[in-house]
Amino acid sequence: MERRFRLVLACPDRVGIVSMVSNFISSHGGSIADANQHSDSTTGWFFMRVEIVADSLPFSLEQLKSAFTPIASSFEMTWQINDSAEPKRVILMASREAHCLADLLYRYHAGELDCEIPCVISNHDDLRSMVEWHDIPYHHVPVNKADKQPHFDEVSRLIREYQADTVVLARYMQILPEDICQQYARQIINIHHSFLPSFAGARPYHQAHERGVKLIGATCHYVTQDLDAGPIIDQDVTRISHRDQPEEMVRLGKDVEKTVLSRGLRWHLEDRILVHDNKTVVFN
Amino acid sequence: MERRFRLVLACPDRVGIVSMVSNFISSHGGSIADANQHSDSTTGWFFMRVEIVADSLPFSLEQLKSAFTPIASSFEMTWQINDSAEPKRVILMASREAHCLADLLYRYHAGELDCEIPCVISNHDDLRSMVEWHDIPYHHVPVNKADKQPHFDEVSRLIREYQADTVVLARYMQILPEDICQQYARQIINIHHSFLPSFAGARPYHQAHERGVKLIGATCHYVTQDLDAGPIIDQDVTRISHRDQPEEMVRLGKDVEKTVLSRGLRWHLEDRILVHDNKTVVFN
Amino acid sequence: MERRFRLVLACPDRVGIVSMVSNFISSHGGSIADANQHSDSTTGWFFMRVEIVADSLPFSLEQLKSAFTPIASSFEMTWQINDSAEPKRVILMASREAHCLADLLYRYHAGELDCEIPCVISNHDDLRSMVEWHDIPYHHVPVNKADKQPHFDEVSRLIREYQADTVVLARYMQILPEDICQQYARQIINIHHSFLPSFAGARPYHQAHERGVKLIGATCHYVTQDLDAGPIIDQDVTRISHRDQPEEMVRLGKDVEKTVLSRGLRWHLEDRILVHDNKTVVFN
Amino acid sequence: MERRFRLVLACPDRVGIVSMVSNFISSHGGSIADANQHSDSTTGWFFMRVEIVADSLPFSLEQLKSAFTPIASSFEMTWQINDSAEPKRVILMASREAHCLADLLYRYHAGELDCEIPCVISNHDDLRSMVEWHDIPYHHVPVNKADKQPHFDEVSRLIREYQADTVVLARYMQILPEDICQQYARQIINIHHSFLPSFAGARPYHQAHERGVKLIGATCHYVTQDLDAGPIIDQDVTRISHRDQPEEMVRLGKDVEKTVLSRGLRWHLEDRILVHDNKTVVFN
Repeated sequence: MERRFRLVLACPDRVGIVSMVSNFISSHGGSIADANQHSDSTTGWFFMRVEIVADSLPFSLEQLKSAFTPIASSFEMTWQINDSAEPKRVILMASREAHCLADLLYRYHAGELDCEIPCVISNHDDLRSMVEWHDIPYHHVPVNKADKQPHFDEVSRLIREYQADTVVLARYMQILPEDICQQYARQIINIHHSFLPSFAGARPYHQAHERGVKLIGATCHYVTQDLDAGPIIDQDVTRISHRDQPEEMVRLGKDVEKTVLSRGLRWHLEDRILVHDNKTVVFN
Repeated sequence: MERRFRLVLACPDRVGIVSMVSNFISSHGGSIADANQHSDSTTGWFFMRVEIVADSLPFSLEQLKSAFTPIASSFEMTWQINDSAEPKRVILMASREAHCLADLLYRYHAGELDCEIPCVISNHDDLRSMVEWHDIPYHHVPVNKADKQPHFDEVSRLIREYQADTVVLARYMQILPEDICQQYARQIINIHHSFLPSFAGARPYHQAHERGVKLIGATCHYVTQDLDAGPIIDQDVTRISHRDQPEEMVRLGKDVEKTVLSRGLRWHLEDRILVHDNKTVVFN
Repeated sequence: MERRFRLVLACPDRVGIVSMVSNFISSHGGSIADANQHSDSTTGWFFMRVEIVADSLPFSLEQLKSAFTPIASSFEMTWQINDSAEPKRVILMASREAHCLADLLYRYHAGELDCEIPCVISNHDDLRSMVEWHDIPYHHVPVNKADKQPHFDEVSRLIREYQADTVVLARYMQILPEDICQQYARQIINIHHSFLPSFAGARPYHQAHERGVKLIGATCHYVTQDLDAGPIIDQDVTRISHRDQPEEMVRLGKDVEKTVLSRGLRWHLEDRILVHDNKTVVFN
Repeated sequence: MERRFRLVLACPDRVGIVSMVSNFISSHGGSIADANQHSDSTTGWFFMRVEIVADSLPFSLEQLKSAFTPIASSFEMTWQINDSAEPKRVILMASREAHCLADLLYRYHAGELDCEIPCVISNHDDLRSMVEWHDIPYHHVPVNKADKQPHFDEVSRLIREYQADTVVLARYMQILPEDICQQYARQIINIHHSFLPSFAGARPYHQAHERGVKLIGATCHYVTQDLDAGPIIDQDVTRISHRDQPEEMVRLGKDVEKTVLSRGLRWHLEDRILVHDNKTVVFN
């Protein structure tokens, strides 16, 4: 895969943004490999993502950022530029359920996810062997129900130590404390096993069975302090019938969870997701 | 289409129900054209639907009911037998939105819905011409916001007068009073323009836009006194993106509403839906 | 809906196209409402669609075209600019099957399709009443199996007379002659009732039943001289089972046909479809 | 999971089959846990599947078969009875592609597939470590392109030695010889990476890209001597766009292949699939 710089920006909409950005790129000989934009008529906000062939520019990543800063300032942009040669560092967190973790590890192993996975953290030791088969360090950090703080302190320490920039809650069944949610805003991805906002909280498949719905779903979202209420990245559903008891719904739902989580993570890794007002713009 | 008797029953599960029912049919020379059954392990309840070729039995509908009564009693069945030669009488109720009504009228006209539509009732006069083109009487029954009772009285009168056994709320935007809901339990079908239980109540597409979901849906359900909380018959969804403002969601959602409502009504007309504990068993 | 100019172009890919186009627009004060681009790495071809707020430019449509011509020439573009204030003129052609025609007429009536429908042409008289209820002229042009040329001559004459720029074959069961296909290349849209390239030609649902497939589909494509082999605009499928005989497949398939045809036509009307090498780029 | 006897039968349709079968079961005190039937009006054939709670009958599997034989004979049934306590023995065959194999092994490990997997056979050694991590023997049986017979002889020997009753071609890229296909008719399951009958044979994703289709699919089928033409068990599709080059289609298609193959195998393991006239009846 050819090396790319990925410019992602959001700013109040006005005339000339695309022109200014594309001019900047072409005036330095830059070749645009992909570009997306969106003007939100409700909020009056403008969103853009541009992939530039890195070798077509006479810049290092830092030089490119410096050169672009004046434009960004003049349009009051929230922005970042990432280098595809520096893949994100993603810590996976799990509990006892294997399906999402196994799926992400398989995709990582097969080269479908462009990232580094420096370690896996779990509050149980059940999945150690599977993780270690992939040559990934496994940290068993138990949770003491009476006092969960030591667990979260150790999780924080590991995130820092491994210099992770992304955390994936692959059916990690604990609620992260406020300070971690805030410190890593838009960097923590969760999979919830329902079609949110229906059936937030515990045991969503049992809630769904109770209500008698005809489709069950899963939702991938960024974690915020409000439980299961962060910006939604992706969702999907699958059909069930009156024959499906909660156990069967759990089995069918697992496939949806895996699909939605891996898709959402992939978009995150490729800098395709922008967040504004607790909603996402996904350039996929 | 060959004439059929449709036997539909529910009872506490125990050994020998299928045998007793199929024996009863075959001992009279009856030919089973289709049969479905379901044992619900959670509730311990048994559900069955059998289509019998009418001409293979030496019975009229009434004689068949009499002959089956002892079996039904011995198993404490809730049951009914319907005759495909006596299609249901369905009153459609609408307001100003044409899409669901137009779709149902088209399908009726094309022979896709096996029923009689004796009339359409609306609290507005907008859709009269479309309905009358199909040679169906159109009753404009205005709603006085200060006192809605006269409207509902007239609706009740029309249902009785036309001897309707089914009422379809095809985007009829009023909330039916308790007494009508009770009197016609499991006979009134509504389409709600969200994937329930998410976004019950008013303006569900705007609620969905506000929350930033990635799929929108529609739900077809039997009407009960609890708003948008009756037994769910069918649901479906369609994908949206950040580009879709509420107006676009309305347009995309209409197609889902039409699909789900017409499918649910079709199952109802064919006696494929059983209700137990606010949930449906759908033998489709 | 705010008036828009829609610029659509294709050319060999090279550095600076986006910049040149967006510069051109912004240098005249033009406001870009939407933009999409695609670089095809297989063919080395570049595709772009830009919607410009018409009132933000100091140009009439003709002036805009003149001003853009030098840029188009220098990049060897195939291009066009359309004005949303001049909706396309679409002739619908049908035979006896009502479902696609009824669906398009409903959507037209409801304002979902931004076009003019100057007339409907059919080789049968069956659908006249439905069309005329919509206040659209209906031309019954019979086909003589022994010599179809007079039919096609009259069809050609009507297309010219009504100054149509788009023709939709809404289950028109005749094969158009080569000269019409060539003259109206990329202007004639057909719906084929299978998931092409499977089951091209006659009676696709019966072919599908014969083969025992588990999904049936529909394909919307531009008509070329090669039967059912033109550039595919959109496709969709629906699930069937062993219970579905061909008649049932026909019924279920109709809903897919309607969905796919109306979606494809909508994209065509909004100038979202570019054709290259018998394949489409769809900016939706 | 409660132990079950699964009776599966097919015979010419006539009055009294259901009654005779259910009588037989209830007269011995048997409790029916699930039952499905289908009368095919095209072929005049009748299909049935009954799950009986094993402990409710006073029979061993062999005794049950003996007792049922007279009924089967009188109706000219093709039939079998399987015991859920004796799961099928499934050999997985692969080549170099890991995705389907990894998915089946994961599901097996997680208890989603009720079978024994006595070994994996591959013509390459690449996937050994993954298989052996699951404690399953791995047989690398190379293919000599000049003479493939020794390979197939060894495959046959292994199937016999391991007493397998089912073989799954999980992206095994060789064409099995006629004699193996015949000997194990309806016991060999293949996954083909296209929506058959489109794109049979080699490199289906490249064929699909060439044709410009908008959905790609996968097909799970029983293997017959005719390449990619056996009875279809299940199919599914996923949406692609003009942006997707063949490599991207391969990646997206893998998820569909995994879903369809695991679903089809699951149905096979639960005796839910009947084959008649190169088509399947799937009681799911």
